[in-house]
Amino acid sequence: MSVKVAINGYGTIGKRVADAVRRQPDMTLVGVAKRRPNYEALHAAHLGYPIFIAGDGKKADFDAAGLRTAGTSRDMIALADVVVDASPDKTGRENAALYQAAKVKAIFQGGEKADVAEVSFNALANYSRAKGKERVRVVSCNTTGLARAAAVLTPRWGIESWEATIVRRAADPAETGRGPINGIVPVFTLPSHHGPDVKTIFPDLSIRTAAVVVPTTLMHVHVNRVRLRRPPRDKDEVIDVFRQTPRFHVFEAWEGVDGTPQVMEYARDRGVGRNDMMENALWANGIELVERDVFFFQAIHQESIVVPENIDAIRAMFDLAPDGPSSIAMTDKALKIEGASLP
Amino acid sequence: MSVKVAINGYGTIGKRVADAVRRQPDMTLVGVAKRRPNYEALHAAHLGYPIFIAGDGKKADFDAAGLRTAGTSRDMIALADVVVDASPDKTGRENAALYQAAKVKAIFQGGEKADVAEVSFNALANYSRAKGKERVRVVSCNTTGLARAAAVLTPRWGIESWEATIVRRAADPAETGRGPINGIVPVFTLPSHHGPDVKTIFPDLSIRTAAVVVPTTLMHVHVNRVRLRRPPRDKDEVIDVFRQTPRFHVFEAWEGVDGTPQVMEYARDRGVGRNDMMENALWANGIELVERDVFFFQAIHQESIVVPENIDAIRAMFDLAPDGPSSIAMTDKALKIEGASLP
Amino acid sequence: MSVKVAINGYGTIGKRVADAVRRQPDMTLVGVAKRRPNYEALHAAHLGYPIFIAGDGKKADFDAAGLRTAGTSRDMIALADVVVDASPDKTGRENAALYQAAKVKAIFQGGEKADVAEVSFNALANYSRAKGKERVRVVSCNTTGLARAAAVLTPRWGIESWEATIVRRAADPAETGRGPINGIVPVFTLPSHHGPDVKTIFPDLSIRTAAVVVPTTLMHVHVNRVRLRRPPRDKDEVIDVFRQTPRFHVFEAWEGVDGTPQVMEYARDRGVGRNDMMENALWANGIELVERDVFFFQAIHQESIVVPENIDAIRAMFDLAPDGPSSIAMTDKALKIEGASLP
Amino acid sequence: MSVKVAINGYGTIGKRVADAVRRQPDMTLVGVAKRRPNYEALHAAHLGYPIFIAGDGKKADFDAAGLRTAGTSRDMIALADVVVDASPDKTGRENAALYQAAKVKAIFQGGEKADVAEVSFNALANYSRAKGKERVRVVSCNTTGLARAAAVLTPRWGIESWEATIVRRAADPAETGRGPINGIVPVFTLPSHHGPDVKTIFPDLSIRTAAVVVPTTLMHVHVNRVRLRRPPRDKDEVIDVFRQTPRFHVFEAWEGVDGTPQVMEYARDRGVGRNDMMENALWANGIELVERDVFFFQAIHQESIVVPENIDAIRAMFDLAPDGPSSIAMTDKALKIEGASLP
Repeated sequence: MSVKVAINGYGTIGKRVADAVRRQPDMTLVGVAKRRPNYEALHAAHLGYPIFIAGDGKKADFDAAGLRTAGTSRDMIALADVVVDASPDKTGRENAALYQAAKVKAIFQGGEKADVAEVSFNALANYSRAKGKERVRVVSCNTTGLARAAAVLTPRWGIESWEATIVRRAADPAETGRGPINGIVPVFTLPSHHGPDVKTIFPDLSIRTAAVVVPTTLMHVHVNRVRLRRPPRDKDEVIDVFRQTPRFHVFEAWEGVDGTPQVMEYARDRGVGRNDMMENALWANGIELVERDVFFFQAIHQESIVVPENIDAIRAMFDLAPDGPSSIAMTDKALKIEGASLP
Repeated sequence: MSVKVAINGYGTIGKRVADAVRRQPDMTLVGVAKRRPNYEALHAAHLGYPIFIAGDGKKADFDAAGLRTAGTSRDMIALADVVVDASPDKTGRENAALYQAAKVKAIFQGGEKADVAEVSFNALANYSRAKGKERVRVVSCNTTGLARAAAVLTPRWGIESWEATIVRRAADPAETGRGPINGIVPVFTLPSHHGPDVKTIFPDLSIRTAAVVVPTTLMHVHVNRVRLRRPPRDKDEVIDVFRQTPRFHVFEAWEGVDGTPQVMEYARDRGVGRNDMMENALWANGIELVERDVFFFQAIHQESIVVPENIDAIRAMFDLAPDGPSSIAMTDKALKIEGASLP
Repeated sequence: MSVKVAINGYGTIGKRVADAVRRQPDMTLVGVAKRRPNYEALHAAHLGYPIFIAGDGKKADFDAAGLRTAGTSRDMIALADVVVDASPDKTGRENAALYQAAKVKAIFQGGEKADVAEVSFNALANYSRAKGKERVRVVSCNTTGLARAAAVLTPRWGIESWEATIVRRAADPAETGRGPINGIVPVFTLPSHHGPDVKTIFPDLSIRTAAVVVPTTLMHVHVNRVRLRRPPRDKDEVIDVFRQTPRFHVFEAWEGVDGTPQVMEYARDRGVGRNDMMENALWANGIELVERDVFFFQAIHQESIVVPENIDAIRAMFDLAPDGPSSIAMTDKALKIEGASLP
Repeated sequence: MSVKVAINGYGTIGKRVADAVRRQPDMTLVGVAKRRPNYEALHAAHLGYPIFIAGDGKKADFDAAGLRTAGTSRDMIALADVVVDASPDKTGRENAALYQAAKVKAIFQGGEKADVAEVSFNALANYSRAKGKERVRVVSCNTTGLARAAAVLTPRWGIESWEATIVRRAADPAETGRGPINGIVPVFTLPSHHGPDVKTIFPDLSIRTAAVVVPTTLMHVHVNRVRLRRPPRDKDEVIDVFRQTPRFHVFEAWEGVDGTPQVMEYARDRGVGRNDMMENALWANGIELVERDVFFFQAIHQESIVVPENIDAIRAMFDLAPDGPSSIAMTDKALKIEGASLP
């Protein structure tokens, strides 16, 4: 069986999920919907992706640009088994009625509230809960990063409490209109919404977060202090567990990776997607154990970290894999996340 | 009595302390020492500050620039009752012998290790401990910010534990050679050195810190979670205490101060020093109380926050004021920290 | 005689002009108009400036903030001899009718088109043309910088042609919402509008400009190549002329001023206004002569450079000074532009 | 025949040239030399590149990192027909003696002075001059960008004079230690060295340049005004010529590419190399014709633009292609520069 996937919204997330779908053996891309022609639409055309016109977009605009369109997003939805909604925040909820009317399954992103779907999803944490579901929400980039770490720490040692500071990138690389250029902007919700969002996956987790926005485009960084219920043997045991878990990449001290600039340089060397870093990036020398308290930094690539999660969500909804680890292994192999390829 | 003060090192801190000394009724500036002529030295000359040649500086360089010099730093030290050492990190320790040989008191900055002095100092926290001392160390900007907050919270409610993330500015505004331009760099000492440094003032405080460096030049931001021993009545009680404590400035929500850029814009409007913000900057809507846990952001102006502390340290060492609050009031009045002046 | 000046719009330019008016012996500030209460309005109140409510602003908002208001902008206009309109771009033109109806003179800023006024103004270039006028437009920061340089070069050597690249700052320091954070954005009007705008003052000048926007908040930089009609004796003659002209500041090589960060650090040391640099900033080692071609860099402080020009414009309109040089001297003395004051 | 290529220096340029060599049908990579193990060396190992120890590097360091080495850079040189020297600026000249002693040909980068080689090279401009040569210098990124444009304009219309402003990126993306973070730094050589460097390829060209450094990591931007000898028919003729020339990419206005951030986003979408943009990037709406004067912006990706030029240089030195256009076509096909591939 090959699940027919449509992508509604062809921006940062949508274009990456489209490419990722194309790489999966058990999925077919039926098209992508975009509102306006631009350089990204042109690239989609070069790749041979059927382009459908989203929302209030106009065929005449695409015609003027010489871009062939295959219909409207409604037409695209009719062709699909599942729609991945990667439209701007809040519009996913409006689109939900369309999907329901067309009797297709739908995946929403973390910019929508949790009740848009039956389950909030992370592959490492609760793959099986999405099995057979009609509507699944892949949580946001920061929540995905935290949920993955919770999925590592909880079963092994239990989490008594977690305090995290989210140091957020202010804009994506191509968003020229967003600032600040020089300054730090606190998020005046204390604790921030990230903690409660992680609880849509781990309802019993005691986690509190606070966030600041800083003038960088590359990655978020989480500064974590987790009090475990049971003490690990030592720091190395903790580091090893992260090293051995998929969707985590641990840089060793000798690699000379100072911060997010070199994490992204590694990603460029590796050549996955658009120099994407789909794993949580940790540093072996950025993990410390003090009694039962684990301190660790993790960098989160806001553009791509949810991409493999969308793929796994599709697989769960259509029961294409026996369990989470199997799906993750299929996804990561198709995306070449581990190892190196010639960029 | 007017204490004769010399400034050894005329950079970011030194030039500000020199100006602050000039504004005090009970102190006299005998000179400043600088290694090389540049635009800052030229300004010192315009202000009429006697310039002495520091370290391996050369008179010929000053002569070529048309800047009159009054001797070497040794000559300057001989004229002083106390030297404020604002030389680059680690060189203060080397200079200590000079001061001792000349039998003058000395103040060191936080870039030196604590044992360079008899006491590590913060005016709100431990003014009286510096009384009559020969060698006092004014702790660094981040430590000063944390110590001030500890001095507010400890006596009222007690602190059970404190977790802080230090989001550090990467360079001062005029340091064109320092980066990163785009990225976040974690500090790979976990917990970071800031916690232990606060303990040089509050030995019994349970505080742990972690730090990241971000591409901004304006201010540091601390993200704090403090578990108190006794619960405050409500959030407003906490906010009010900060509002009423000198060396704290609380921005109200209606003022529209989003982040550090507007804090510094406020400072420019106010016109203290070089658009300096010598107080901890807090936001009323950036303070929250959850049971006994106080969450708050505070912004720290790395260039100026220790300036009034140096002045108070001098006053304590020469017993020029009956107690800390009196000295703080004298300093802040002379520096016009509160209120507004025509910029 | 003391001219009564009102400021309509209390943002970056308005607040600076208000302070500058206050410092002049022949002008009185009757009030400032602002739409919403914020930290800047609070500062105006601290300074004792009568605050009037601008545009669609609401008294209730000011009341809630505890800020006393003195009426609406119409009330303020009725008190004035001249209004300096420092409202957002394009709204000056709408306000023009108000000023005319109230029979008060008006000064507009460079964000308005030239035909909003009888004359486009720069004190060094065409002071006398504004004498007795009702409506004068002070040209924008970049145009002011170029016009000043034209006023230096034209009378001495004649300008055959001028090619300038305007490297623009992307946002003012407190504008947290503007980007880009990392990237260069060309201005796709070639040549750019700056050249024609200089011609509103020098109609016969052959000048062409092109502009790019870069991620900095401090200053613009102009990269100039001017072909003169008559060759200067040598490079030093050119440098000396800039050195000796008011509204120009030439940094010497030994001062170690690498770029705009240290220019602004100099401005902070000097303590004029909000660390303002109201002169064109040039570098002696950034001026070169190749036959008849002068190459030079100049940095332009977008926030403050037009402030003294607004003051001179008032003086011209009311004939308060015999000529441009006299007015410039009065303005600069009152603003303490040259020399140094204790910051 | 397959030319055996060694890469001495495995940084920004070296790693890209290594990958590019691997993609060519007529070249074989014999190894790369690196001084210290880091994440880039690890990636080279993953790709199966033989790693040799460069300069004063230590085998023990590589052993400790678990990285197998194949000898020293001398051993590598002995295996090669040609060495691409991509070591830090100025060390290429020191290495030249090694290459000569080993009787292997050598390519140097633009960081070396022109006399390190027999010819300074750009494939569009002077391919045939490198035929059979022993030592060739590929000019720097900015010079390459200018030389390419000269190669387009000169034969068609002749160039009377060229004035260019080089707006330089301050650091490469992974260089966390370089600034400025906020500010513009002029290059105090007027005219700048770029003009004379272009003349190493076009000796008779009248070109003058000036440069400023700005806080971005992505690309340089050139602001050009070229006075042609003969007038083009119209602007579109100029645009079309750039569109039709290899190593140029012209973005159309409807594509919505505002500036360098979207140019690099296009590059990420396209998936060439490490999101590389090996062509000069121009904008159709950033090209203007005023009589005989062409104004145009071009963005230059400092990390990758010289990569195809190194490949073409090898081909010229070993006479692997009949002429420049043939070599360029082979290189660009192998690198997939035009068209789109699944990233």
